[in-house]
Amino acid sequence: MLSIYQSNGIMGGMNAVSPPIENIAPPGLKGLIVADTEVGSVRGDEGWFHYRGRNAASLARDLSFEEVAHLLLAGELPDSAAKEVLRAELAAARRLTPEAADLVAALARSDLPPMTILRSVLGLEVDPRPTLDIDPDERRAAVIRAIGITPSVLAAVNRIRSGSEPLGPDESLSHSADYLRMTLGETPLPEHARAVETYLCLTADHGFNASTFTARVITSTGTDVAGALGGALAALAGPLHGGAPGRVLDMLHSIGHPDNAVPWIAAELEAGRKIMGFGHAVYRADDPRSEALKAVAIELGGELVARALDIESRILAYLAEWKPDAMIVTNVEYYAGVVLHLAGLPQEAFTPTFTTSRVVGWGAHLLEQAANNKIMRPSARYTGQLYNGG
Amino acid sequence: MLSIYQSNGIMGGMNAVSPPIENIAPPGLKGLIVADTEVGSVRGDEGWFHYRGRNAASLARDLSFEEVAHLLLAGELPDSAAKEVLRAELAAARRLTPEAADLVAALARSDLPPMTILRSVLGLEVDPRPTLDIDPDERRAAVIRAIGITPSVLAAVNRIRSGSEPLGPDESLSHSADYLRMTLGETPLPEHARAVETYLCLTADHGFNASTFTARVITSTGTDVAGALGGALAALAGPLHGGAPGRVLDMLHSIGHPDNAVPWIAAELEAGRKIMGFGHAVYRADDPRSEALKAVAIELGGELVARALDIESRILAYLAEWKPDAMIVTNVEYYAGVVLHLAGLPQEAFTPTFTTSRVVGWGAHLLEQAANNKIMRPSARYTGQLYNGG
Repeated sequence: MLSIYQSNGIMGGMNAVSPPIENIAPPGLKGLIVADTEVGSVRGDEGWFHYRGRNAASLARDLSFEEVAHLLLAGELPDSAAKEVLRAELAAARRLTPEAADLVAALARSDLPPMTILRSVLGLEVDPRPTLDIDPDERRAAVIRAIGITPSVLAAVNRIRSGSEPLGPDESLSHSADYLRMTLGETPLPEHARAVETYLCLTADHGFNASTFTARVITSTGTDVAGALGGALAALAGPLHGGAPGRVLDMLHSIGHPDNAVPWIAAELEAGRKIMGFGHAVYRADDPRSEALKAVAIELGGELVARALDIESRILAYLAEWKPDAMIVTNVEYYAGVVLHLAGLPQEAFTPTFTTSRVVGWGAHLLEQAANNKIMRPSARYTGQLYNGG
Repeated sequence: MLSIYQSNGIMGGMNAVSPPIENIAPPGLKGLIVADTEVGSVRGDEGWFHYRGRNAASLARDLSFEEVAHLLLAGELPDSAAKEVLRAELAAARRLTPEAADLVAALARSDLPPMTILRSVLGLEVDPRPTLDIDPDERRAAVIRAIGITPSVLAAVNRIRSGSEPLGPDESLSHSADYLRMTLGETPLPEHARAVETYLCLTADHGFNASTFTARVITSTGTDVAGALGGALAALAGPLHGGAPGRVLDMLHSIGHPDNAVPWIAAELEAGRKIMGFGHAVYRADDPRSEALKAVAIELGGELVARALDIESRILAYLAEWKPDAMIVTNVEYYAGVVLHLAGLPQEAFTPTFTTSRVVGWGAHLLEQAANNKIMRPSARYTGQLYNGG
């Protein structure tokens, strides 16, 4: 496990000691550029975001999850041969080893959150060698393995907890259809598989959020892929980070008839409670993920969609009057909750579904960090009392 | 698992949208102050470091590990009652649940690194609730639990891999003596227990290194203690971060007689290889940890110590001539390797020993971050090509 690389050491020709340049980061590092990236970015003021420079909402509408994953991981869209290679690699990577399947079964009987269980299993299934000690192909293989086992583990936990046997992967299916099958226990309808695939494509990456930053900070030490992704999983589970599309469904249920939307939101704001599904830290224009998922919802159709549309427009009108300057938009949570529900997923599978996509973005950032690495080691300012000197 | 806290939401009275202040961090965030802390700091130019404003090398010489841990975690030195409370808490926290012991036994049969195994077990044993959703006492209890199981898991892996049965904790012993007992299989000599305790006290915290930063970044999302500490463990395992005191022993073995020291180091530098045990990114004056461990080594005495002292002085003289301006000093690795070896620890227990102490520093930083939290979410700059607009 120990390596020849070593921070506390000198090397011929290098001077280990250089004076620090002191400056102070803004609170929460907000707005501070800590890395260059070619993975993608969010152009919030313009209301769009991209993967590798290509409009992500358009990609999600037109492409498969495998194509989007290839773009994010390799930096370019695949031709049909490369797409098939990645599809087969992901299909194989979804198969858990017997040891991992046993561990999942054991941990699913506890009350641990599924994300915590996935953290534990990642270490078993993914190449434990430091990224610094392996070559780019080996790093990529470790990332593919992590992307593969993520839906398998999370779906298995869901199955076991709902009293069913976990299912192994069906290697003939696409990643998104097989995730849905492993969660639901039956091959999904094509329109449901495609709806979930669009959601996965839309949420695979989204700028430099806290979990992506975490993956890069940990990777910067040269450590193993499972360690970096486990940290990102932990960050995503943080209530200040991760989304909760399930709560939008609870809200729609609470509101009931659209005529109740305005009194409901007025009461919620009066009570100082957060309103799920509206507002975003980055987008001032419409959230493109919300727009894309709204289109998917409309295509799926039905009573819930009609009601969600009506309630959305009433809430937006109310919010525009309540804070005219804030330009509060519908965020990704709102129609995500509706779409995932209509595709048959139970609420406890919503965060696992998000994780299934976001692990691709983490993987792309991890590979980029490892390929051109510098350890991220900032400073802190001591603000306590000093009792004695050296 | 999902929580009422939500980043993608608006709340009465708050404006979610504020324009980012753009600026660019130095490479690797070097020298950038990203947090205020009252845990401690490294005053490298002055050649000392402190815990809560108190000279850490002096504390390590005079106090028990429990006292140092209390100081770091609670911000003040304990009276004798508080010290006994913490000793008993840590003793109880060292006992693994049967489920965790089974998992350790299963994973120890694999070839996974011990640190990876510990990451997996942490999730089972530590309160899985988000720090944001629990009170400071509950957070502290989770941290104590993590500090307790760390030596138990790592010692158990070592025991199993050396063909022995793992030992449960002896609650009558101090944390350091019991760690040594659980690793070696017998109650250690008092001078060995004290030598290891001094090492643990000296390495419990050391400024804002990459693993400590990782613990704080993950904690800033409000997530669970095991998740934040698991990320820190992953960072510590990174070859650019963690130390490798075992390699100093290999070096002393390679050099053999002190007369070989100068030809050996000349050849190593000529070949562009790193020299373990010398040079540090922060200290320009002597590394106080090295000084303190040298004193411990001299007290333990014997042939290896005499030889290490002789070789050190010859290497320092050579390095001073080789790079007169670099002020290369002996770092913590050099005498750490000697001391841990003389205390009876095998080389594969060196990193676990370091982890046993550093988890205290992570815990202190985690509690500080959680008590006064703001999510750490910086930005990145997209440097790739743009193919289309919104």
